[in-house]
Amino acid sequence: MTSHPTAKPSTLPTGGGAALMDPADTLVLLLDHQSGLFQTVKDIPVADLRRNVAMIARLCTLLDIPVITTASEPSGTNGPLMPEIHELAPHAVYVARKGEVNAWDNADFVAQVESTGRRTLVMAGVWTSVCVMFPALDARVAGYDVYAVIDASGDPSELVSRTSLARFVQGGVKPTSTNALLSELHRTWARPEAADLAQLYGLVAPNYAAVMESYQRAQQAARQSS
Amino acid sequence: MTSHPTAKPSTLPTGGGAALMDPADTLVLLLDHQSGLFQTVKDIPVADLRRNVAMIARLCTLLDIPVITTASEPSGTNGPLMPEIHELAPHAVYVARKGEVNAWDNADFVAQVESTGRRTLVMAGVWTSVCVMFPALDARVAGYDVYAVIDASGDPSELVSRTSLARFVQGGVKPTSTNALLSELHRTWARPEAADLAQLYGLVAPNYAAVMESYQRAQQAARQSS
Amino acid sequence: MTSHPTAKPSTLPTGGGAALMDPADTLVLLLDHQSGLFQTVKDIPVADLRRNVAMIARLCTLLDIPVITTASEPSGTNGPLMPEIHELAPHAVYVARKGEVNAWDNADFVAQVESTGRRTLVMAGVWTSVCVMFPALDARVAGYDVYAVIDASGDPSELVSRTSLARFVQGGVKPTSTNALLSELHRTWARPEAADLAQLYGLVAPNYAAVMESYQRAQQAARQSS
Amino acid sequence: MTSHPTAKPSTLPTGGGAALMDPADTLVLLLDHQSGLFQTVKDIPVADLRRNVAMIARLCTLLDIPVITTASEPSGTNGPLMPEIHELAPHAVYVARKGEVNAWDNADFVAQVESTGRRTLVMAGVWTSVCVMFPALDARVAGYDVYAVIDASGDPSELVSRTSLARFVQGGVKPTSTNALLSELHRTWARPEAADLAQLYGLVAPNYAAVMESYQRAQQAARQSS
Amino acid sequence: MTSHPTAKPSTLPTGGGAALMDPADTLVLLLDHQSGLFQTVKDIPVADLRRNVAMIARLCTLLDIPVITTASEPSGTNGPLMPEIHELAPHAVYVARKGEVNAWDNADFVAQVESTGRRTLVMAGVWTSVCVMFPALDARVAGYDVYAVIDASGDPSELVSRTSLARFVQGGVKPTSTNALLSELHRTWARPEAADLAQLYGLVAPNYAAVMESYQRAQQAARQSS
Amino acid sequence: MTSHPTAKPSTLPTGGGAALMDPADTLVLLLDHQSGLFQTVKDIPVADLRRNVAMIARLCTLLDIPVITTASEPSGTNGPLMPEIHELAPHAVYVARKGEVNAWDNADFVAQVESTGRRTLVMAGVWTSVCVMFPALDARVAGYDVYAVIDASGDPSELVSRTSLARFVQGGVKPTSTNALLSELHRTWARPEAADLAQLYGLVAPNYAAVMESYQRAQQAARQSS
Amino acid sequence: MTSHPTAKPSTLPTGGGAALMDPADTLVLLLDHQSGLFQTVKDIPVADLRRNVAMIARLCTLLDIPVITTASEPSGTNGPLMPEIHELAPHAVYVARKGEVNAWDNADFVAQVESTGRRTLVMAGVWTSVCVMFPALDARVAGYDVYAVIDASGDPSELVSRTSLARFVQGGVKPTSTNALLSELHRTWARPEAADLAQLYGLVAPNYAAVMESYQRAQQAARQSS
Amino acid sequence: MTSHPTAKPSTLPTGGGAALMDPADTLVLLLDHQSGLFQTVKDIPVADLRRNVAMIARLCTLLDIPVITTASEPSGTNGPLMPEIHELAPHAVYVARKGEVNAWDNADFVAQVESTGRRTLVMAGVWTSVCVMFPALDARVAGYDVYAVIDASGDPSELVSRTSLARFVQGGVKPTSTNALLSELHRTWARPEAADLAQLYGLVAPNYAAVMESYQRAQQAARQSS
Repeated sequence: MTSHPTAKPSTLPTGGGAALMDPADTLVLLLDHQSGLFQTVKDIPVADLRRNVAMIARLCTLLDIPVITTASEPSGTNGPLMPEIHELAPHAVYVARKGEVNAWDNADFVAQVESTGRRTLVMAGVWTSVCVMFPALDARVAGYDVYAVIDASGDPSELVSRTSLARFVQGGVKPTSTNALLSELHRTWARPEAADLAQLYGLVAPNYAAVMESYQRAQQAARQSS
Repeated sequence: MTSHPTAKPSTLPTGGGAALMDPADTLVLLLDHQSGLFQTVKDIPVADLRRNVAMIARLCTLLDIPVITTASEPSGTNGPLMPEIHELAPHAVYVARKGEVNAWDNADFVAQVESTGRRTLVMAGVWTSVCVMFPALDARVAGYDVYAVIDASGDPSELVSRTSLARFVQGGVKPTSTNALLSELHRTWARPEAADLAQLYGLVAPNYAAVMESYQRAQQAARQSS
Repeated sequence: MTSHPTAKPSTLPTGGGAALMDPADTLVLLLDHQSGLFQTVKDIPVADLRRNVAMIARLCTLLDIPVITTASEPSGTNGPLMPEIHELAPHAVYVARKGEVNAWDNADFVAQVESTGRRTLVMAGVWTSVCVMFPALDARVAGYDVYAVIDASGDPSELVSRTSLARFVQGGVKPTSTNALLSELHRTWARPEAADLAQLYGLVAPNYAAVMESYQRAQQAARQSS
Repeated sequence: MTSHPTAKPSTLPTGGGAALMDPADTLVLLLDHQSGLFQTVKDIPVADLRRNVAMIARLCTLLDIPVITTASEPSGTNGPLMPEIHELAPHAVYVARKGEVNAWDNADFVAQVESTGRRTLVMAGVWTSVCVMFPALDARVAGYDVYAVIDASGDPSELVSRTSLARFVQGGVKPTSTNALLSELHRTWARPEAADLAQLYGLVAPNYAAVMESYQRAQQAARQSS
Repeated sequence: MTSHPTAKPSTLPTGGGAALMDPADTLVLLLDHQSGLFQTVKDIPVADLRRNVAMIARLCTLLDIPVITTASEPSGTNGPLMPEIHELAPHAVYVARKGEVNAWDNADFVAQVESTGRRTLVMAGVWTSVCVMFPALDARVAGYDVYAVIDASGDPSELVSRTSLARFVQGGVKPTSTNALLSELHRTWARPEAADLAQLYGLVAPNYAAVMESYQRAQQAARQSS
Repeated sequence: MTSHPTAKPSTLPTGGGAALMDPADTLVLLLDHQSGLFQTVKDIPVADLRRNVAMIARLCTLLDIPVITTASEPSGTNGPLMPEIHELAPHAVYVARKGEVNAWDNADFVAQVESTGRRTLVMAGVWTSVCVMFPALDARVAGYDVYAVIDASGDPSELVSRTSLARFVQGGVKPTSTNALLSELHRTWARPEAADLAQLYGLVAPNYAAVMESYQRAQQAARQSS
Repeated sequence: MTSHPTAKPSTLPTGGGAALMDPADTLVLLLDHQSGLFQTVKDIPVADLRRNVAMIARLCTLLDIPVITTASEPSGTNGPLMPEIHELAPHAVYVARKGEVNAWDNADFVAQVESTGRRTLVMAGVWTSVCVMFPALDARVAGYDVYAVIDASGDPSELVSRTSLARFVQGGVKPTSTNALLSELHRTWARPEAADLAQLYGLVAPNYAAVMESYQRAQQAARQSS
Repeated sequence: MTSHPTAKPSTLPTGGGAALMDPADTLVLLLDHQSGLFQTVKDIPVADLRRNVAMIARLCTLLDIPVITTASEPSGTNGPLMPEIHELAPHAVYVARKGEVNAWDNADFVAQVESTGRRTLVMAGVWTSVCVMFPALDARVAGYDVYAVIDASGDPSELVSRTSLARFVQGGVKPTSTNALLSELHRTWARPEAADLAQLYGLVAPNYAAVMESYQRAQQAARQSS
């Protein structure tokens, strides 16, 4: 059983957050982000999808959130996992499956999840309606608090995407987005990782990267003219 | 009373799936997929709708899932059922109605459903908001576990489509999609029907067919150059 | 207190419909369909909205469903009610308000509703988010079974429209559509009004009118060639 | 602790509104409407978003509804609050934060909310999925009745916007819109502020401003020709 | 050869219009507006398309513009012509074809056009890319001044629609719209048909019908209060 | 005949601009921007349309570009001109028409245009396809260089809007946009009106207003910290 | 040099068609419809694209129109040609390239085109902006009459698609669509291939297939009841 | 005057390309890609825009195509140039302007263009309608062959974007796209830069990157199993 990193001493504010996820109890599951499956995604551009997933990998590395990945038949037509995940989150643990479509059908996968002791599962994957939906519903039944990151996942049409969102809510899975996940784990700018976190906002919202560039130039201009 | 096929000995993994449909308890109801009604569908292109419905017919044949079909006034303006259903699912049982808009209002139809002994009903039809909604809500009241396959059904506008999705969830009907249905019945690649199932993915996600073509050519090229 | 028509002896099938509205208990409320407010509707083309509302008026006349209408400051900028409603549903009862935005805030309106003895309220109006939402939520609290006809109503943007749909569901109001209302009151083709009802389908789905025209010509051609 | 204005003696009708917000118990929270964050908003045009927020500021001033504002790192890249808020709602109270992303994590902010004694919180902000979602969920847990004004808020994509709406409903937060908020606080035209309120409708629905212009000209023409 | 009506003595202004069509030289050709073909139209809702075509029929009757209609295999699957055309333009001349897809391939049709002596041809039909395009290009080669009314015609996709527009311009055919045709033939409110023409604007722009309703009510209110 | 202002001594750079409009030869024609017609515009939100037109009025005042306005039956259902035009461009000359739909059919209008001696006409109006198209084509025939400002004009559908654009190009009218007009008259920041012009960019692109706010705050922050 | 089939004795009408393509002079070029490239197409769903291309293959076989195909690096990542082309058009001639992106850069390809003696080239391919554009522009310069079938081709975004359309027109290439190509080669129902051609219309417009099904059932019903 | 690199000895095929740009005569102009202006772009996501521009920078470096950049008031609110350009194209020459909106108004800029001796200008910038349009039209008048890369540029709305495209065509400027530019300079895979060029296709079409990943894995799998 692979060991997972321990979360840093919490820097979170203590006044609020009763309804928010606790980073120290959070485990991220990245499911079947594979090159063949990406071609079938139609509810988000594949460049945005990959950038969002890569951001999550960076975020987990930065904040020591454990990550488990898995793939469905990666030597077959589904294709390999996008390599950015393990490059950016070297601590991520990969679990091979034995043909199961639903990762929760694989005993090794469930055991790996259980080994972390964490009860808040953040899931993303392709397809949303299958590779996220099935383990999310199963984990919910198993008593976990489950989040589905809609825009770090992908579905084969807009109509399917709306359907998945409704089914998650019906099944007690909490739908969220990549930017919200970033902020929900971030929680405060008064922490040592603030500068690194700021860069991540430019990934979930590319216009924000331009905002930062403009800001720096404006300050530079102000200093030069003062 | 028509007899329905018995499901094959289960090849499903046993670890998970607590929240998923059990193929051995599942009955597919295809409701009023008629040529005249197709002209009024505006939330999905009719070619996609028919391909999805045809895929479900193939899937049910492949996995021995029983199917019941029905039509509303097929000699009238609503037009005949799309012929692909019974061509691809020759075991499907057709129930004639006596003018009822809601299939559940027809005693023969309900009796046919009951005769299967199955309690998980997967419904699709045109219109979603009527021909699926009415029997789905009624079956829910009657204690069945009911799924509505949104993209194997059709509604007369996007606005109506969003409305139907909300009403399903409110009424305890589980919204799903054709690709999710395929995967939820498929469950594992470690089964004898795997090759046939793979072909079906190319129908629910046409880009996947091209993925498979590319894969085969890439392997062929590798073998020729090795 | 104005008297309402009594419903015709029921022609409905008796086998199903447990989850559907009972026409004999149904009252339709058409709220603030006014020419000035129509200009602000952006989630449905105004021609479609008016055609849907006019269809409901015809339907209620055909099936003896009582109708109450009201308007918000019709001599002011909100403009007059669309005249088709009272032309097509001459039995509709108009209730004047005294400035209240929420029709349920007007005692005369509530009294008129109560006088019908009906407990299933079908509401449509402009704006959905206000003129339908407020009385719908209030009626729900007062114990009525409430339906909101989304596409016989209108909101000032798509974003508001989606928001209204969510708030209805949250508040226990059942969202529905004009075509579903037609079918839910129609219930069976084995009734004397069938030919008239068929015409109404051409209004909720204009392609269906062309389907009927093609059907008649095809039959005529068949008879001429036989 | 800053004092908040007392609501005017109620002019509301007494018959209905059981399900609606009580203006005398309502507090408006405007969260992080900052120029840098505006650039990342993709589910509503920024001109519409600002006009909606400015309308809320005017409305609160007109009806003596207390307002609390806050900003996230306004000297940094997130940028300053849009100046219209405090210009149009001079009674609004600004609470500085100490780096917390979630305003509810800031003790001063929560204390300021509590000091008003009001239990109905109307929230809007950028991003919807973060700056509104987190305090909304936390306030819900703390027992408040919470509304999220979807179109006076903004999210970085349509997909995220739909996700936020679903998560609000799941968490017991009531989604609403700027026009509905206006009408829900307005409640009746039989009040002294009617003329001023009428102007506000031209902001939430710009076509309505043209309706009013046409109306006045039509009346002027009628009087001149009579 | 059928006789065509003579245009009324011109009421047009004489100062401008050098670049506009001359009503006295204009002939309207309505091509293959058939119920079966309508089902394939995807660049405009069929209700809008029919309303536009019906408006043109009314307009031609009102202003004595000659009309020629034709249909492609109307006893076959293409279906009958929409009946509104000949109902609203009883002076329209119908030319039967002998199987030709392109009306200009039919000698009777061309002879009928020539018999009018008019050289400005306004064409509309289904499909735009075929039934309008082919005779439009042929007529252009034959020296006619040709207009294609894009929104009184229909194509099987948005992509095809944009393609047709480009091909028309490339071929020297002038693209126009139903509302522009109305105005271009209307030309001045200082004519006896003004009141009838005003009603037609409510058909090409349904919001305009509501504008007229509001106007009348505003004037009525002004007169009552004066 | 009303006198028009003389352009300021040119501050333009002399190196380029051979293909651009000459401000000293430019006349702006604002045609039928009326409240009743605004309700029928569907290719641009009415708030954006009015803001664009108001920007043009400000721009012409700032740079001393002459403006002529006109309206079609402003006491009738078409409604009054939007008042912002003459408020923001007090030098604009209004020409009344005598019922002509096409302003170029009105001799007074043409005379007013000719009186300015300018040969570059920039036109905007509602509808684009009629009130701009007809005088634009006529003026082109009369030898003027004509620009149509597409987004300071409005058409009753997207399909009509695309059609109008094609017809303008075919007729030799140059299509342009409000932001391009601003820049084409602006030409250089090295001019005394630069600060005022900067504000106008925030109107044609509302995000730019937020860019300016962020910039000022960033500089203020830099200066405070230096 | 491969021999091409001779066209059947013409069955075309002789009255019109001066502006239309001559089937006896037409050569169809299908360029780089490869599985890898299909994944990058975003202006048309890949299922529609393949169905359109397959229809063209059938059409050319049915009417003896010669076809040339080619592929760009089909053993590499671009992937193999879609197999339907050569299956449905066994007479198509495949020309291998030597790395050239532009088929017209390949001498064998140009020689093969020239060998047919035909001067009307109908091109389709992926990407439209490259694999169709480059040979189309080159062939135009070489004096051919060139058509680009927009919806049997594909581009990587809607924006690129609109750009390609404009560039074709500018370069003298005629844009057309699959349905128009079918009709332009079809020309008349009075030909022996009529029944086969009718089936092809169900491919270019899937709703038409349902129209035909309804028609047959309506006739069958008429005959049974007569 | 800065010296520009000499193009590599041509590796282009010689048979075709008469209508295509000659790399040895091509100069790329990147105009005002600034962080402040990016916030106003609404016809393409800013991430896509930047990725396209960065690809062009890489491409020019790889193929020794000279590049000139310029910016409009980069110390002001328009913000700095996106840094990727000069990072990826270190040979690019930056020309400062003196306030001119139109780069062609700046004598230094025109001199720099002329110094290259190249007559084929490929332009991209923000806004398309201004920063690309003005120099493009001016350069066209000056006799250059001018291309505008539509999706490496940006405009403030979809409507403006369509307008710009039409105006380019009207003015004799050739519209193109980033992917077409890549292919038009690429021309053949039989060149030493082929592997590097292949990577660039993954930037202009992100799905292509996944195609390449799948291809490599498929080949690896084939080799392992052989």
